[in-house]
Amino acid sequence: MRFEAMWKDLAPLGRAAHGGYFRQPFTAVDHELRHWFRTAAEDRSMTVEEDDFGNLVAWWGGVATAERPGLLTGSHLDSVLDGGAYDGPLGVVSAFAAVDLLQARGVVPIRPLGVAAFAEEEGSRFGVACLGSRLATGAWSWEEARKLRDRDGVWLRDAMASVLAHPGGTDADHLTRRDPHERRRAWVARVAAYVELHVEQGRDLVERGAAVGLGSGIWPHGRYRFDFTGQANHAGTTRMEDRHDPMLTYAMTALAANKQARLGGHRATFGRIEVAPNGTNAVPSRVTAWLDARAATTPALQELVATVSDQAEQRAGRDGTALVVTPESVSAEVTFDAALTELAGEGHRWPVIPTAAGHDAGVVAQAGVPTAMLFVRNPTGISHSPDERAETEDCLAGVEALADVLERLLR
Amino acid sequence: MRFEAMWKDLAPLGRAAHGGYFRQPFTAVDHELRHWFRTAAEDRSMTVEEDDFGNLVAWWGGVATAERPGLLTGSHLDSVLDGGAYDGPLGVVSAFAAVDLLQARGVVPIRPLGVAAFAEEEGSRFGVACLGSRLATGAWSWEEARKLRDRDGVWLRDAMASVLAHPGGTDADHLTRRDPHERRRAWVARVAAYVELHVEQGRDLVERGAAVGLGSGIWPHGRYRFDFTGQANHAGTTRMEDRHDPMLTYAMTALAANKQARLGGHRATFGRIEVAPNGTNAVPSRVTAWLDARAATTPALQELVATVSDQAEQRAGRDGTALVVTPESVSAEVTFDAALTELAGEGHRWPVIPTAAGHDAGVVAQAGVPTAMLFVRNPTGISHSPDERAETEDCLAGVEALADVLERLLR
Repeated sequence: MRFEAMWKDLAPLGRAAHGGYFRQPFTAVDHELRHWFRTAAEDRSMTVEEDDFGNLVAWWGGVATAERPGLLTGSHLDSVLDGGAYDGPLGVVSAFAAVDLLQARGVVPIRPLGVAAFAEEEGSRFGVACLGSRLATGAWSWEEARKLRDRDGVWLRDAMASVLAHPGGTDADHLTRRDPHERRRAWVARVAAYVELHVEQGRDLVERGAAVGLGSGIWPHGRYRFDFTGQANHAGTTRMEDRHDPMLTYAMTALAANKQARLGGHRATFGRIEVAPNGTNAVPSRVTAWLDARAATTPALQELVATVSDQAEQRAGRDGTALVVTPESVSAEVTFDAALTELAGEGHRWPVIPTAAGHDAGVVAQAGVPTAMLFVRNPTGISHSPDERAETEDCLAGVEALADVLERLLR
Repeated sequence: MRFEAMWKDLAPLGRAAHGGYFRQPFTAVDHELRHWFRTAAEDRSMTVEEDDFGNLVAWWGGVATAERPGLLTGSHLDSVLDGGAYDGPLGVVSAFAAVDLLQARGVVPIRPLGVAAFAEEEGSRFGVACLGSRLATGAWSWEEARKLRDRDGVWLRDAMASVLAHPGGTDADHLTRRDPHERRRAWVARVAAYVELHVEQGRDLVERGAAVGLGSGIWPHGRYRFDFTGQANHAGTTRMEDRHDPMLTYAMTALAANKQARLGGHRATFGRIEVAPNGTNAVPSRVTAWLDARAATTPALQELVATVSDQAEQRAGRDGTALVVTPESVSAEVTFDAALTELAGEGHRWPVIPTAAGHDAGVVAQAGVPTAMLFVRNPTGISHSPDERAETEDCLAGVEALADVLERLLR
């Protein structure tokens, strides 16, 4: 089957020697990923559209217009730092494979069908998750995005310029498209519905013995930057009682976040940290750490972040350090389209499960497009890790399921 | 006075816009520092010697030999990352200024007087403090040093090759000098005594109302790498109870180290940390952090490190993570030469104070050379920080004191 051939071609791109993936956007690897995407589209005589933010769509049955809206499927090709092979690419490869199946079944599309690969879904380079879909649907303005830099200080626009002809749009575009609401209206008018297939990132499907499931919605979640500042000093000669060490305030905050999440059944993670000057024999002057927080409801999320921030503030008072908390990207709760999800699941025994992971599907749903998600079983539940897995048999069941859903919507 | 002119010339080298210093060894800035050193030596008709490890000595009154051993003074020019102007350079500039004073006083050296600038004293690039003096005196073998890499993976030898003709020595040298004991004997034979002047890195002199003080000795201290390993996973979808998060083990360890140091009157600092993959939405797979620990006695230091390691191990058991602790450089207690220190202080009311900071003077003392230290008052006690300060008046008192000590030893 062509699924396996595509998967094999894609597998080596951005893979480190130990097996982890580094597929950051607008890099040399991203060039290779885009080349792979264009080849897959050409093999199926699909027309590729690349927007000014790096999002790709390969169209079958004509390019969608506001007059003839299309059906969209797909996911993303980028990975977290040292990620797995499935998160993102499984949805893109399955989408192309579903087109193959539909063509084999003799389906003639009554409307355009697009396979999408959204840019920087993980936010692993510029810190904003679903950056490509947010820009395309106007959930982020280009004026905000212009201020983004990666860890090395590279501006988003400069990074984009390495793969795009008009990063952020031409000046002429700006005149007509600088208003995010306008951009959203233009994007939504061309998309009748969006269906995203994704590897599951937990073990609900394992526990329910199903290869495939449908998504009910996405937990509200956010990223919050915690800037702890203190006083750099000599690690040997400075008495413990004379210090203003922001590392201590951070350490207590990381433990407090974990405890609050455990108590409330939420999720809280400090996975990224930057220390200045980060020298062995110096008390740090600054620790910046990012809290990834998620909860079942928006009030619960707000309470979680407020409690952690309060406890951090109190500790900062004792340490003689200062703290500023900045929300970097916060996503409201998403409920997928009930009618679309019901239509998709009709006649199948697919469990309907929520997820605490963000997806482009959430952004597209919030833009006002009827959206559904399909999940494929993950035997260990591990994701964002080189150990992420899905059985080929389950992947093929996912392709079949996606083709079934798309066929219903195309007829 | 020439002290101030030298200080002014040196001040801009390696200084960042916000005022902090980045004077890492074997870099472009190091080239400039060496050029400054050679110019200062030429201005005084001193002969510069650069050894195969990057240590510089400018000789007045001839180059020392085993037959005609010299008197050595000086310090280092490198800084910690984002350090201050005084730690190191004050000793080198004061040494040249003391030569000026001695010449003005009409002192004719009965033996060679050398002004030294040791390489990589801070260990800010290759992780080993006092690397230059340790290599020169055989406290580290070149075979060990060859294995050192900086944060970017650059080998020590390759970095050295950018400034030195024969990094680590020529092959011919290796035949005669590969034995560290042999190297120590050769080095020590040429040095009759060493006197290092340094900015104080605490507030003892402030509290005792003295501009200048003498050193009694150096606390034993060490750097220990803590490698915490866990299981990378998705920050959103992984239930808190399913995680093996090494960040939590680290956070508890950082707090425990602080508490143990406070309880015992020791010093313990986690100032440097590296996280993999260091992504906002991933539970880390690995956290590596460096403990800088110091105590008044070697048994107290050993107990401090053992207690922190034990508490970290226990927490690792609860977190389902693993811990390996590796000592990277451990320095024994140093007591400076009592007779030399007494001779230096005769007729002055200089307080005699201990320090918890490592210095090349400690390495030289341990090699068997009679060694003394002079400290110059630091109004805030802050060091290893852009806020490090010394009043010019106190610096000039330091130069005078150093010249007095050297004159006694030269007559």
